[in-house]
Amino acid sequence: MNLIIIGYIIGIVLQIEALFLIAPTIVGLCYHEYNSSIAYATVAVICLLTGIFLRRRKFNSNELYPREGFVAVALSWISLSLFGSIPFMLTGEIPNFINALFETVSGLTTTGASILSDVESLTHASIFWRSFTHWIGGMGVFIIMLAIMPFAGAHSMSLMRAESPGPSVGKFLPKIRDTAILTYAIYLALTLIITIAFRISGMSLFDALTMTFGTVGTGGFGIYNDSAASFTPLQQNLITIFMILCGVNYNTYFCLVFRRFKEMFSSEEVRAYFIIILSSAGIITWNIRHLYLTLGESLRHAFFQVGSIITTSGFSTVDFDQWPQLSRSILIILMFIGACAGSTGGGMKVSRILILIKSVQDELYRIIHPHLVKKKYFDNHILSEETLRSTNAFTAIYFVLFFLSVLLIGMDELDFTTDFTAVASMINNIGPGFNLVGPTCNFDVYGSFSKCVLIFDMLAGRLELFPILVLFMPSCWKKY
Amino acid sequence: MNLIIIGYIIGIVLQIEALFLIAPTIVGLCYHEYNSSIAYATVAVICLLTGIFLRRRKFNSNELYPREGFVAVALSWISLSLFGSIPFMLTGEIPNFINALFETVSGLTTTGASILSDVESLTHASIFWRSFTHWIGGMGVFIIMLAIMPFAGAHSMSLMRAESPGPSVGKFLPKIRDTAILTYAIYLALTLIITIAFRISGMSLFDALTMTFGTVGTGGFGIYNDSAASFTPLQQNLITIFMILCGVNYNTYFCLVFRRFKEMFSSEEVRAYFIIILSSAGIITWNIRHLYLTLGESLRHAFFQVGSIITTSGFSTVDFDQWPQLSRSILIILMFIGACAGSTGGGMKVSRILILIKSVQDELYRIIHPHLVKKKYFDNHILSEETLRSTNAFTAIYFVLFFLSVLLIGMDELDFTTDFTAVASMINNIGPGFNLVGPTCNFDVYGSFSKCVLIFDMLAGRLELFPILVLFMPSCWKKY
Repeated sequence: MNLIIIGYIIGIVLQIEALFLIAPTIVGLCYHEYNSSIAYATVAVICLLTGIFLRRRKFNSNELYPREGFVAVALSWISLSLFGSIPFMLTGEIPNFINALFETVSGLTTTGASILSDVESLTHASIFWRSFTHWIGGMGVFIIMLAIMPFAGAHSMSLMRAESPGPSVGKFLPKIRDTAILTYAIYLALTLIITIAFRISGMSLFDALTMTFGTVGTGGFGIYNDSAASFTPLQQNLITIFMILCGVNYNTYFCLVFRRFKEMFSSEEVRAYFIIILSSAGIITWNIRHLYLTLGESLRHAFFQVGSIITTSGFSTVDFDQWPQLSRSILIILMFIGACAGSTGGGMKVSRILILIKSVQDELYRIIHPHLVKKKYFDNHILSEETLRSTNAFTAIYFVLFFLSVLLIGMDELDFTTDFTAVASMINNIGPGFNLVGPTCNFDVYGSFSKCVLIFDMLAGRLELFPILVLFMPSCWKKY
Repeated sequence: MNLIIIGYIIGIVLQIEALFLIAPTIVGLCYHEYNSSIAYATVAVICLLTGIFLRRRKFNSNELYPREGFVAVALSWISLSLFGSIPFMLTGEIPNFINALFETVSGLTTTGASILSDVESLTHASIFWRSFTHWIGGMGVFIIMLAIMPFAGAHSMSLMRAESPGPSVGKFLPKIRDTAILTYAIYLALTLIITIAFRISGMSLFDALTMTFGTVGTGGFGIYNDSAASFTPLQQNLITIFMILCGVNYNTYFCLVFRRFKEMFSSEEVRAYFIIILSSAGIITWNIRHLYLTLGESLRHAFFQVGSIITTSGFSTVDFDQWPQLSRSILIILMFIGACAGSTGGGMKVSRILILIKSVQDELYRIIHPHLVKKKYFDNHILSEETLRSTNAFTAIYFVLFFLSVLLIGMDELDFTTDFTAVASMINNIGPGFNLVGPTCNFDVYGSFSKCVLIFDMLAGRLELFPILVLFMPSCWKKY
């Protein structure tokens, strides 16, 4: 294990964080919250200095092997979280370390679960920083890419894979660096469009910006105590549309940029994604029709909540924990499905579900016709053995981690529904769960140990399990 | 699809059922329950005649292809259930068809979930028949083997695979028929030993027999309203020991017969099985120690419940739904793990869990060392690609079916814990769940549609998913 290289990468990541911390400092100055500004500026300086310290040693750039890469990615996220949580403690808004870390990890992993019962009591600088972490986390790919730029060798490809969500099937640009830059451009364009749309719909600039961060990053930190309930129906519908668009595979936007419209509409994953959204929202609308005055209102809430959960954002317009069990079951299942691969959303990803279904069909087919071998296709590409194997390993590890977490947080003696949906919400980076962690509640019901388990789940979920688990492999730390 | 062959196989199965139905007829005569005896005798005759009718056509015995085999296995179980439920309706003890079918499927699949609130009000004949279905279901392999004897050709092997639980790794005897006969001999020996032990411990012959059926078949139908709570501590401990022994891979008993003691103790699955039991029972004992007077009592209940759930029997000595959440979470996870492969128990099976863990380790290893390929071993055999692929497909289909079922029974508007544990209990063939389907409750809380979903889950779980799902593949029903 080459610790110098890993230190160097973390150093760059921290210097980038220092840059980001300037934003809440400025917001604090605008709102005359000078204490907050000082806190954020101080942490920016700490990040900068730590970065310089970590980057002081020389090294051979060819020594970035996959395991260094994976460890660097995992530790970068942990460092971002640790330093990002300091301002909350400095300003005294979240004095407890575990709570501050939970809130920051929840932000960076674009989960959006909070331990705060009164968000509105925070300073503008801190509300901004919370939402801003969603935006930073959503483009995590780009930050890590910047950090490993100097190493652009043979192994950086497998490193990038650790960061890009979902099983990769199609590739657009030959160079991973170009792909990352284009992804980032699309991300910025979406941010701009959504901010303008929110502003036109009547939100203040502060609200428009922070809500955009939560929407583009599929995060879901509310800036009001009632999440998105106090926005106008028009604004809620806008959020619904943008959440759903941000959960689409970014490949679709690549197609748009390159004018490959045929390919755009032929993506199996995106089609399945919209079919799931439409059918789920349809059933829920019918299921909750008696709860609201008009069908339009039911439709609005159903689409908002389906969009919010499947994209793993986690905003809410109503307390959907009060909905009938059928609707709640649908939402719980959507938690696991998640958004499309290649988006900022979490969950298992629609494409993984499709690949799993295909492998099941294949297995059934083999039973009936043992001597016939059929090739499996996904989006007109042959599904490689490697993709299948890694998808299956992902599924296995996903459920092992899932049940282990439910077991561990069970020690806090809450009920099963709370524990189950809390872990589902964390590992899929959603935000709210049900019962005691429902949309009107917060995660402070759990003790410190359980919060640590949930912090781990959020990180593992955001990094698609493997990089964070590699840290626990003894052979990862052995000398060459 | 060769329907004549399928009809022939079902015909044999029904004639075997006719033989089994003689037992409750005799029990009815012993207890002067003549109405019951007439009912059971009538159904025996119906089974016999239907069997003769189905076996009247001639066919070419070489035409038993895998798909016919799978369909025959699935339909045999469905026929056994349909005809087995008629006595309950004829005697008027369970007049509703869906309820009678639920009770019979629950018996045959060795689940042990009931829709009855007062078991003790049944006639002795019916109590006997309920428990006897566990015993019949537990040795389902043998019945199906008898039925496909006439076809003993190239394809009967893959057919037997549909019936033998768990992924097969080691083989003992060259001929599957010999293996089946030896399995059956062990099954009979266990039945005899346990009946005698129960009788010596003070149970009446009727109690000893019926409790043995539930124990050997890992079924779990109680013969008293309080399941196993009214038995003496000694009897409860005996049940614990025998349940755990019946959840062991029968290969272990093969080793005992062939005096291969080294192999016996080197089985990874059996070792993991005992480690899981000991550690779970240890944690639960500590967790429930304040609920009982002595540590011995906590220990007894903890071991009983752990043994009952992991072997998927489902007996209970206390209302474990009142235990702390940690203990309940452990029990819920044990529901999924299940017993060893090659036993009469249900669940995912310990060996499948081990294989999944191995494939996860392998995937993590590949990430760190992309250019090294390590062979995976299980019990000193190389894990074949086929075993891995089929284990993964099993896991995928298992969770798809699981969540789909939770969704469907969600329409009855009970709570999530009830729905989740109900499906877990059905698909893993356990018996009780938690909350509204806890050990002191019954499954009559669900409506007819949900009961049908749960009946399907029990059958799918018992047949290890594939055979019952093959029925839904259009290509299965196409002509050659």
